[in-house]
Amino acid sequence: MKKEFAVIGLGRFGGSIVRELIELGADVMAIDISHSRVDEYAQIATQAVVADTTDESVLKSLGIRNFEHVVVAIGENIQASILTTLMLKEIGVPKITVKAQNDSHEKVLRKIGADQVVHPERDMAMRIANNMVSNNILDYLELSEEYSIAEIKANEKIAGFTLIDLDIRAKFGVNIVAIKRSNQILVSPQAIEKIRLDDILIIIGSDEDIHKFEKKALH
Amino acid sequence: MKKEFAVIGLGRFGGSIVRELIELGADVMAIDISHSRVDEYAQIATQAVVADTTDESVLKSLGIRNFEHVVVAIGENIQASILTTLMLKEIGVPKITVKAQNDSHEKVLRKIGADQVVHPERDMAMRIANNMVSNNILDYLELSEEYSIAEIKANEKIAGFTLIDLDIRAKFGVNIVAIKRSNQILVSPQAIEKIRLDDILIIIGSDEDIHKFEKKALH
Ligand SMILES: Nc1ncnc2c1ncn2[C@@H]1O[C@H](COP(=O)(O)OP(=O)(O)OP(=O)(O)O)[C@@H](O)[C@H]1O
Ligand SMILES: Nc1ncnc2c1ncn2[C@@H]1O[C@H](COP(=O)(O)OP(=O)(O)OP(=O)(O)O)[C@@H](O)[C@H]1O
Ligand SMILES: [Ca+2]
Ligand SMILES: [Ca+2]
Ligand SMILES: [Ca+2]
Ligand SMILES: [Ca+2]
Repeated sequence: MKKEFAVIGLGRFGGSIVRELIELGADVMAIDISHSRVDEYAQIATQAVVADTTDESVLKSLGIRNFEHVVVAIGENIQASILTTLMLKEIGVPKITVKAQNDSHEKVLRKIGADQVVHPERDMAMRIANNMVSNNILDYLELSEEYSIAEIKANEKIAGFTLIDLDIRAKFGVNIVAIKRSNQILVSPQAIEKIRLDDILIIIGSDEDIHKFEKKALH
Repeated sequence: MKKEFAVIGLGRFGGSIVRELIELGADVMAIDISHSRVDEYAQIATQAVVADTTDESVLKSLGIRNFEHVVVAIGENIQASILTTLMLKEIGVPKITVKAQNDSHEKVLRKIGADQVVHPERDMAMRIANNMVSNNILDYLELSEEYSIAEIKANEKIAGFTLIDLDIRAKFGVNIVAIKRSNQILVSPQAIEKIRLDDILIIIGSDEDIHKFEKKALH
C-alpha cells in the first residue's frame, strides 16, 4: 500500500525527507514558495508545486486534505510555519510533522495541534556533543530520559578478555546486546566471546551506568 | 579532565553544540562573525568571541591551535566553511568536525582534511522519513549498512502473548533486547514476559528482518 505524503519547504531538511520517502517507495508532493527549489525536485518528487502555503485557498486547491501526513519544513520564517500548520489542522490533515526553530516555536506548534515537532539541528547537536566529550562513545539512541543504547569502542584495557572475565553486567549494570566487528554484527554474544581491539560494543543501560562503564572499564 | 573545544558558527546546530558541551562540563569558546549571535552566548559559553574565521591572523590570535577539537558550523556560506577548515588544518588543530551543506561540500572538506563531516538536516530527515512510512517503527539506530536497532510499537496483534508464544527470534531472526513500558525499561525481558498493548519493543536485527517482523507480526 502506497501512502500519500506532502512536504512543504524544500531546504536541506524538507528536501532530504522528499528524497528518502521517494526511495522508500512513497508518493510525495513537494511544495515550496521558491521556483528554483521546486525545479530541483521536479524530477525527484511525484509532484512538485510552487505555492505559498500561508494562503488557505492555495492549500485547498492542492487537495491537501487528502494527504495522510504532511511535513512543514519551513525554517526561518516562523510566522509562515505557524500559519501553515494552523491551516493544515483546520483543513483536517490527519498527521502533521513540523520543524521547529526553538522551544517557544515548539510550544505554539503544540498548542495549535502539530502531532510531531522536530528539532533536527538540536537533536544532531546533542549526539555530536556527547560523542565529543567521550572518545569511546561513538553513537547512542535515547530510549527514555534515563536509558540509552550506546556504541562504545573497545580499547586495550578490555581487549583479549571474555565477557565472563569482565563481568560487565554485574559490575556496571549494563548489557552488551551486540558486538560490531569489522563488517559483522554478533547479536547476543556468548559469555565466552573474547573482545577484540576495535570491536564496537553495543550496550544498553541507564545513562549513569553507561558513563560509569565508559569511565571505569576503559580507562 | 576538562577538554577544550571551540565552535565556529552559532546557528541552530553550532549553538546547540555549545549548550550541550557546557552542560556536559566542558570548556567551550563560541565564535561567530555576528555580534548579536555572540551576545546570545556570552553568558552560556566559557568565552564568546566575535571573529571572521576566514582571516588566518584572527584565527591565530584566538590561540585556536591550543584547542583539542574544533567544530565548524558555518552553514550557507560554503566558501567560508571551506576556508576556515583549511586554515584550522594548517594551524594544526588535532580534530576538526564540519557541518556540510551537501555531498560536493563534503567531498571538498574530506580532501582538505576534515576529520568528521556531518549532515544534521539530512540525517534527521532519514530517520523521520523511515518513521513516516512505517506506523509502528518509532525510531532506529543504524549499526551498519545492514543491521539496526529499532523501536517498534506493539499492537493488538501481539498484545497478551508471551515472547515464547510469539517465537520472534526463530520466526523473524530479530531479538528483543528491551521493552519500554510507560516509564520503565525492561532490559533482556524473560521468555515468559507478556507483551502489553502500547509496549515499545527495542529489537535488533538486519533491516530486512526488522521490516519483515514489522509487516508480518503486526498486521
Ligand atoms: N510561505 C511559504 N510557503 C512555502 N514554502 C515556504 C514558505 N516560506 C518559506 N518556504 C520555504 O521553506 C524552505 C525552508 O526554509 P528555510 O531555508 O528558512 O529553512 P531552514 O530551517 O534554514 O532549512 P534547512 O532545512 O536547510 O536547515 C525554503 O526553501 C523556503 O523557500
Ligand atoms: N566567516 C565567518 N566567521 C564566523 N562565523 C561565520 C562566518 N560566516 C558565517 N558565520 C556564522 O555561522 C553561523 C551559521 O551559519 P548559517 O546560519 O548560514 O548556517 P545554517 O546551516 O543555516 O545554520 P543552522 O544550524 O541554523 O541550520 C551564522 O551565525 C553565521 O553568522
Ligand atoms: Ca538556514
Ligand atoms: Ca538548518
Ligand atoms: Ca538522557
Ligand atoms: Ca540501512
